[in-house]
Amino acid sequence: MAEETIMSAEDSGLDALETPCLLLDADRLQANVATMRARLDAHGVVLRPHLKTAKSLDVARVAMASAAGPATVSTLREAEYFAAGGVRDIIYAVGIAPQKLERVGRIRRLWPVDLAIVLDSLEQAEAVAAWGRHSGDRLPVLIEVDADGHRSGVNPADAARLAAIGRILDAGAILRGVLLHAGDSYGLNEPNALRAAAEAERVAAVTAAAALRSAGLPCPVVSVGSTPTARYAETLDGITEVRAGVFMIGDLFQAGVGSCAVDDIALTVLTTVIGHQREKGWIITDAGWMALSRDRGTARQPVDQGYGLACDRDGIPYPDLIVSDANQEHGILALRKGAKARLPELSIGTRLRILPNHACATGAQHDRYHVIAGGRLTGAVWPRINGW
Amino acid sequence: MAEETIMSAEDSGLDALETPCLLLDADRLQANVATMRARLDAHGVVLRPHLKTAKSLDVARVAMASAAGPATVSTLREAEYFAAGGVRDIIYAVGIAPQKLERVGRIRRLWPVDLAIVLDSLEQAEAVAAWGRHSGDRLPVLIEVDADGHRSGVNPADAARLAAIGRILDAGAILRGVLLHAGDSYGLNEPNALRAAAEAERVAAVTAAAALRSAGLPCPVVSVGSTPTARYAETLDGITEVRAGVFMIGDLFQAGVGSCAVDDIALTVLTTVIGHQREKGWIITDAGWMALSRDRGTARQPVDQGYGLACDRDGIPYPDLIVSDANQEHGILALRKGAKARLPELSIGTRLRILPNHACATGAQHDRYHVIAGGRLTGAVWPRINGW
Repeated sequence: MAEETIMSAEDSGLDALETPCLLLDADRLQANVATMRARLDAHGVVLRPHLKTAKSLDVARVAMASAAGPATVSTLREAEYFAAGGVRDIIYAVGIAPQKLERVGRIRRLWPVDLAIVLDSLEQAEAVAAWGRHSGDRLPVLIEVDADGHRSGVNPADAARLAAIGRILDAGAILRGVLLHAGDSYGLNEPNALRAAAEAERVAAVTAAAALRSAGLPCPVVSVGSTPTARYAETLDGITEVRAGVFMIGDLFQAGVGSCAVDDIALTVLTTVIGHQREKGWIITDAGWMALSRDRGTARQPVDQGYGLACDRDGIPYPDLIVSDANQEHGILALRKGAKARLPELSIGTRLRILPNHACATGAQHDRYHVIAGGRLTGAVWPRINGW
Repeated sequence: MAEETIMSAEDSGLDALETPCLLLDADRLQANVATMRARLDAHGVVLRPHLKTAKSLDVARVAMASAAGPATVSTLREAEYFAAGGVRDIIYAVGIAPQKLERVGRIRRLWPVDLAIVLDSLEQAEAVAAWGRHSGDRLPVLIEVDADGHRSGVNPADAARLAAIGRILDAGAILRGVLLHAGDSYGLNEPNALRAAAEAERVAAVTAAAALRSAGLPCPVVSVGSTPTARYAETLDGITEVRAGVFMIGDLFQAGVGSCAVDDIALTVLTTVIGHQREKGWIITDAGWMALSRDRGTARQPVDQGYGLACDRDGIPYPDLIVSDANQEHGILALRKGAKARLPELSIGTRLRILPNHACATGAQHDRYHVIAGGRLTGAVWPRINGW
């Protein structure tokens, strides 16, 4: 048994890594991207992958249609990083603050990138238009529309407000279209409800686009995006692009929603057993919340995965063994409450892999991915960025 | 009003910063350290500050007795960083994995640092002793003792196991003593219960030390540490050092426990208003969970602070205005449920500061601190590290 374990370790190459660290399964990444691309191709809709999950140029090159994009980002730091890496068509999909316009303009001057911004108020539109007239750089702008009451955006039924914002932009910017994110779909887990959420997002987008066009304004882009609605949409009529992001990596939360299977998840945290509290049924590892993130999103789902699901070094989940609690640099593995499985005997030094609740949050705790293909470390290390 | 706001902005210098970012109040940091140092000096006990919260050499130099330490770290990356920065007395206070011994040895060769490690099992002790005999570097080791069933450590009543581990270490390492962390004190909020937790930690430590000494083994160091028990201990007889960490910065969770006041918290996240959903009473900012962390520790306390408490740019909390929800790069500010306060009118572009739930988790989302003293930005930027 011990010899087999050592052989397996040498085979996969994982023993050479310091733990905790991120492993990215390139086979699964490619398969997840191919599935989403085929789905959107069938709808005749562009995939504009959201790069906020991976924050890696290497991952982006797998996910994007070409090295030039298109792509979506969540920070201007990402915009700079991906523009420097050759991406030429980017939407910064978080509502713009007037203080950030100089930096947007600088990015557009430094690189030949079509960097578009997003807003949902008259105040922002006026600031952007004034900046455009002053600087001479008319910024491409999408008006954010509220698909489901989740977060930001203009009510799609408020045609007057949409038109008012659109007219201000038309006079000092480039009105590019409308953008929505059906974030409330993350709270669902039933296929019919997910199909309905996708259709509601589509209808809201098309309604808002029609409001702009009825006012004589342009609306070439109708952009929607969330991984669950991208997975469940039955029609995307009237939509020009989809901005899903987490789909390319997947996580336990998305598996709980139904956006992917556990076996699709491309990201794991490699960890080492550092202790036991046998009378409590605890196995202590060196992957605490610092390595896994504090995300407990699955706590609200029917299957609570704790801070993550424990797998062996080959990525095969142990039955019902979860990270039941986490301190900063300690993970506590225990069987799920009520589980019939037996606690595996995992001696000090054993390498394990933890499937994460939330790929965006877990990834952000790290600065690189160690790439696996064909079940082995390839030796490739893909850097990733953080910060703003 | 608008003019006053602009004047205040120019006064403090905060408008020059990109948001979101971390602000560190050096006055509060120094006061928190002075208070803890005075408390431990009165007990005649050494402060060995835990640097896992700040992960910054600049902060460490405020917190440590001298530029050489002593100090506590949670990762070997921290050990390398602080050793390179001149710290000469460090405990790596997470149970050692055998695979990490080479790196421990490398750190001890590269810098003249007394780097000690921690373990709680016969298997680990055997691995460390074997490594010591093989390498010729006998590592200083503390045996981790379980103060309260929170995480790792040998039961302090298990004198036989303590002595067995101690004897193995005595033959191939340097048995430095015992180390405890009363982590369950984080779940308390009542002074008498906190005093009792501190006394239980002390008694467990002294009991374990006595077990080693009775077996004829050395135990020069008796190390305890958690911010709540350090704050509430009435006696530290038999203890040689305290390893508190978060005390120097403070956070809303510690305020909920009673370890600090809200006005002691030295860390805030500077953010900018980027939108409103007025009919819902929401103010949207650019500090989402990526900037604040996913930590929701206060959800288990009597006062749930959401993802953080909103303050004006001078750091004065708005009554009952919390980050009620957070997406990756969006914070949603709303009044606490049942609050009588009115939602402040905060226009697009307004700068705010968010007090964090958990300084360790929020800090880890960032790579630098912008330092404030006397209510103004000093211009100093203190880098901080992450990773392993």
